[in-house]
Amino acid sequence: MTHRIAILGASGYTGAELVRLIATHPSMQIVALSADRKAGMEMAEVFPFLRHLSLPRLQKIDEIDFSKVDLCFCALPHATTQVVVSSLPRDLKIVDLSADFRLSDPAEYEKWYGQAHTATDLQKEAVYGLTEFYRDEIRQARLVAGTGCNAATGQYALRPLISAGVIDLDNILIDLKAGVSGAGRSLKENLLHAELSGGTHTYSMGGKHRHLGEFDQEFSKLAGRPVHIQFSPHLLPMNRGILATTYVEGDAKTIHQTLTDAYASEPFIHVLPFGALPSTRDIAGSNYCHIGVVGDRIAGRAVVVACLDNLTKGSSGQAIQNANLMLGSEETAGLTLAPMFP
Amino acid sequence: MTHRIAILGASGYTGAELVRLIATHPSMQIVALSADRKAGMEMAEVFPFLRHLSLPRLQKIDEIDFSKVDLCFCALPHATTQVVVSSLPRDLKIVDLSADFRLSDPAEYEKWYGQAHTATDLQKEAVYGLTEFYRDEIRQARLVAGTGCNAATGQYALRPLISAGVIDLDNILIDLKAGVSGAGRSLKENLLHAELSGGTHTYSMGGKHRHLGEFDQEFSKLAGRPVHIQFSPHLLPMNRGILATTYVEGDAKTIHQTLTDAYASEPFIHVLPFGALPSTRDIAGSNYCHIGVVGDRIAGRAVVVACLDNLTKGSSGQAIQNANLMLGSEETAGLTLAPMFP
Amino acid sequence: MTHRIAILGASGYTGAELVRLIATHPSMQIVALSADRKAGMEMAEVFPFLRHLSLPRLQKIDEIDFSKVDLCFCALPHATTQVVVSSLPRDLKIVDLSADFRLSDPAEYEKWYGQAHTATDLQKEAVYGLTEFYRDEIRQARLVAGTGCNAATGQYALRPLISAGVIDLDNILIDLKAGVSGAGRSLKENLLHAELSGGTHTYSMGGKHRHLGEFDQEFSKLAGRPVHIQFSPHLLPMNRGILATTYVEGDAKTIHQTLTDAYASEPFIHVLPFGALPSTRDIAGSNYCHIGVVGDRIAGRAVVVACLDNLTKGSSGQAIQNANLMLGSEETAGLTLAPMFP
Amino acid sequence: MTHRIAILGASGYTGAELVRLIATHPSMQIVALSADRKAGMEMAEVFPFLRHLSLPRLQKIDEIDFSKVDLCFCALPHATTQVVVSSLPRDLKIVDLSADFRLSDPAEYEKWYGQAHTATDLQKEAVYGLTEFYRDEIRQARLVAGTGCNAATGQYALRPLISAGVIDLDNILIDLKAGVSGAGRSLKENLLHAELSGGTHTYSMGGKHRHLGEFDQEFSKLAGRPVHIQFSPHLLPMNRGILATTYVEGDAKTIHQTLTDAYASEPFIHVLPFGALPSTRDIAGSNYCHIGVVGDRIAGRAVVVACLDNLTKGSSGQAIQNANLMLGSEETAGLTLAPMFP
Repeated sequence: MTHRIAILGASGYTGAELVRLIATHPSMQIVALSADRKAGMEMAEVFPFLRHLSLPRLQKIDEIDFSKVDLCFCALPHATTQVVVSSLPRDLKIVDLSADFRLSDPAEYEKWYGQAHTATDLQKEAVYGLTEFYRDEIRQARLVAGTGCNAATGQYALRPLISAGVIDLDNILIDLKAGVSGAGRSLKENLLHAELSGGTHTYSMGGKHRHLGEFDQEFSKLAGRPVHIQFSPHLLPMNRGILATTYVEGDAKTIHQTLTDAYASEPFIHVLPFGALPSTRDIAGSNYCHIGVVGDRIAGRAVVVACLDNLTKGSSGQAIQNANLMLGSEETAGLTLAPMFP
Repeated sequence: MTHRIAILGASGYTGAELVRLIATHPSMQIVALSADRKAGMEMAEVFPFLRHLSLPRLQKIDEIDFSKVDLCFCALPHATTQVVVSSLPRDLKIVDLSADFRLSDPAEYEKWYGQAHTATDLQKEAVYGLTEFYRDEIRQARLVAGTGCNAATGQYALRPLISAGVIDLDNILIDLKAGVSGAGRSLKENLLHAELSGGTHTYSMGGKHRHLGEFDQEFSKLAGRPVHIQFSPHLLPMNRGILATTYVEGDAKTIHQTLTDAYASEPFIHVLPFGALPSTRDIAGSNYCHIGVVGDRIAGRAVVVACLDNLTKGSSGQAIQNANLMLGSEETAGLTLAPMFP
Repeated sequence: MTHRIAILGASGYTGAELVRLIATHPSMQIVALSADRKAGMEMAEVFPFLRHLSLPRLQKIDEIDFSKVDLCFCALPHATTQVVVSSLPRDLKIVDLSADFRLSDPAEYEKWYGQAHTATDLQKEAVYGLTEFYRDEIRQARLVAGTGCNAATGQYALRPLISAGVIDLDNILIDLKAGVSGAGRSLKENLLHAELSGGTHTYSMGGKHRHLGEFDQEFSKLAGRPVHIQFSPHLLPMNRGILATTYVEGDAKTIHQTLTDAYASEPFIHVLPFGALPSTRDIAGSNYCHIGVVGDRIAGRAVVVACLDNLTKGSSGQAIQNANLMLGSEETAGLTLAPMFP
Repeated sequence: MTHRIAILGASGYTGAELVRLIATHPSMQIVALSADRKAGMEMAEVFPFLRHLSLPRLQKIDEIDFSKVDLCFCALPHATTQVVVSSLPRDLKIVDLSADFRLSDPAEYEKWYGQAHTATDLQKEAVYGLTEFYRDEIRQARLVAGTGCNAATGQYALRPLISAGVIDLDNILIDLKAGVSGAGRSLKENLLHAELSGGTHTYSMGGKHRHLGEFDQEFSKLAGRPVHIQFSPHLLPMNRGILATTYVEGDAKTIHQTLTDAYASEPFIHVLPFGALPSTRDIAGSNYCHIGVVGDRIAGRAVVVACLDNLTKGSSGQAIQNANLMLGSEETAGLTLAPMFP
């Protein structure tokens, strides 16, 4: 059975990544693509790397006949997303990739995004899209909120540890290294090749990064009490990949065993042998997440290093994984591409 | 039906690329992997990006039971290859990725590779593996010789033009830009990130590059008289991709039409609209080849720009395409992955 | 003696490169910096890498007291430049880095830049700034027009050969590879790290690149008859550097000797031994130009490969070299920094 | 006055960087260069980017007449260094760039480097070369031990804070991001462009990195009691630069003020305004170190981010700064080159 798919916001990187992945998906067919400012163009003009595919021409959203769509991926900017999703049919299955439905508390949304949420009913309805931890809810959901890519990486490192109570909840620090595609197709001087290549810097330091809202929500829910982590993102001269170096207090071997057990049957989450540590090169372009654990020379401290591809497992791959569940397909359908190396 | 596949020389880049592509191939299963110096190791130790796959442990070649193998990819260094292939069962289907069987004339082999060929019978038997132009022979072949990656790129730009007689055969120049994975996993100072990134240089200039042997052989055969092109390779700070800027004398529109017609029904070769030119970014990681044509301000001159991924369409993807034909599978099986961008 | 320097357009890459080089210049002191949209800002806010220098605050051009300026570098966009330079004092020494005064024929200017020149008297006055070939005129000049960076590279490879009559004037082809800083600080999608890194493509192919106007003007003047070359630029994933692979017909040894003789006493132009070829890595960040010559296997063909740093020898270093002459300083003053490697 | 300089181990990156810097040094002249395996070669053959300089031919160490040398830089591998330095004249001024004389305690040396020190008298004599903190001793020293590049970066962030007692000594964590030139010209697969570019990974995690020996020695001496920090290095796809993200407990404003005061008169150490954070791009190729401080949302936690160029301020620039002091020159002589951007 083939499911008919629409992608809103197809002219950005996550939109293009959805098309790339669906190109070899056994049971999804793209029937509509939107990009407001580029409506009327062929996808191959916007993204020549997709030239070999037969794809519908880009449209404006209101030109799409959603009665012929089984599931809609929404890859629009936050704030815009609330308005658009509110206007879509109430029975349309939607996987949203924006930040608009990740936080369930309107006050938290306003705190992190600087404006009130205008679709609080949808906010309440939405299921948080971290597949491995919300599988059952996602299977039943109509609206799934894709997670932040940094938030996903950190949660894969930490959720089983918080659930199992094997780390100190008041001393969690994530030093995160992110590739530049996570910033999207934004025209900013510091994202130019001439300025980004060959160097690194921090951004949104000191507790200002919006993905902290997700960490707070999810970790506090898991722990049953407020958990506030420290989070320091760095931008690296690479296009894809996030590596989260996660510092915790706890017994390293216990931590490793806890993660190994938690992910033993997960198709996409691989815990390396104790002491082995991952590289973003080994997951680029794929839906896999690699996690390593090492103890420190200071007793009682451990480091958990998790990495994934921000465009795949961190957003568009995750979105398809969730869509597979919502559509009753095999969860891994279309997502078993190997990483690309070198 | 599943075909049982062996890969000899699995610890290099083309070996790993074969594994990457076969991972999602519908009718190939890897049953043996060899790597002499790394025999006994798991593939995931040599290439952690393949960790998610269930693969046989690396073996020495003589440990492999070839009676259980339907087709063998041979990704060994040239010279070594002759010896190994000579020792394999004479009824085993083989796709070779080395340079050893590309040139059919022993004298030419000796001229370009500096030593006499020791398996001239196999050399005579081998079919040249440029799929689109040797499809019928490949279908019947037992031993197929994969082309040089640069040689493939230049031939896609030029073969239909030479066949159609629409260009001057004495004024053909290819200025080629190649990514570094084409040099293989060689430990050389100038291939280090510190020395290669951020700059470019020429290599094997002035008629010394070995792929000239292939150009000479193929173009002369096509033209029915000796054709010797000028060929200038450059190494670029990128991992994958070859862009061949091909300078010819002829009418640009005729040239474009000739190429468009020649490749009209080819699944992997895409000729862009007249005046549009390709980018290596749009084919990276895929089996596609993009070709563009533009006229120059100097009347009677045209430029044909062809690009492909050296590891995929230029070697391992081509090898699988040929293997598909040899095994009676769909020619495109396992090869329709979209490029990866960004 | 210290000369007082103003830089107009200090917020772009060539402006910043002027500041970088003047920072260790023995007889230049920066007394004014302009950047219209960033007027009022400190240079360290616009370019934090210049934080260690004591520099005047950015101003609007009309706030600068030019009576206290000995020489003014003008690094503004073309077209704007004509207007600004027309408004400056007529006795102010000016080195312009834009395209506005490179072409001496108003018709040629209009042809290549798509609009009539509005300061044809200044256009007539300006001396073409390719130092090694216009040294005497530059010494006497009030207004010097910096050359295009690509145009400089190609001319270093070819001028002595055209003057000496050792190559065929009707078969000259430059296949040029350029780093991305040549495109300036422009906010375009294809200049983003995510889109530029890891690949290459052509641009302005087929006789459309504006630097052809300079090649036509200079080579025709040298030859005493019209000379029109073929020129194909490529954008590479590197920040600095231009490598011009120049294809000519002539005797390779004679060509090498001609270049060696022509540049024997030049401080910045180095001709490598016959057969050795240069790399952009070996001139990055410096005012040096390296040139290599090799013969082809096809008799009568040779390749001249020239490379330089587009921001240094190709623009800001050249500008300072010219200013040194205009101010009676040592020509090499401030310009002997070694390249940076790795 | 010109000082006569020898460089032992001139064929590595730090050797080449010494030559690059000395090229424009006002009072140093290179009179001897050694490289055992490349003895007899011209430096321009080993490093073509130094082609424009007149340099002595590479020699074996025992061919050098040290009676004609005022100061010798030693850029050899550790262990080898002990043997070589022991054989040099006892009155020769030496700045060593290896690890051999950084640790003053033979037991610590053996612990971190896996073998007993064979020149413990020299080990005792050597002065630790972190210029800003050992200025007086260095001025009097005959043998100065250059610091580890990572060790220097971390110490610039932390020393004034430990001295002032404004941070918790038991909760110091450095998450360090290092460019690949720090690994030297080593031929390893993971340093190849094809494998390093486009990704990141950790190395020597969990308390195994040898620079921890320096941190332990220096911080414990400063604090007057044992201090053991946590240290996690990461390798980044960039050639130059180290960024040390340093996590401490203390009042962020106090920390910022302490660093600002400590470095107020330092020519090379720049503390940014509170809340501003540095980028490695802004110090590449220079002897400058930039430091930023930010508070976290969790009260009582602060982050100090320090960055420098590993080849310049982290090794060869530092070495020249120390040599300037030892030779009675201006401390900043030859070291005021601006960084290179872009």
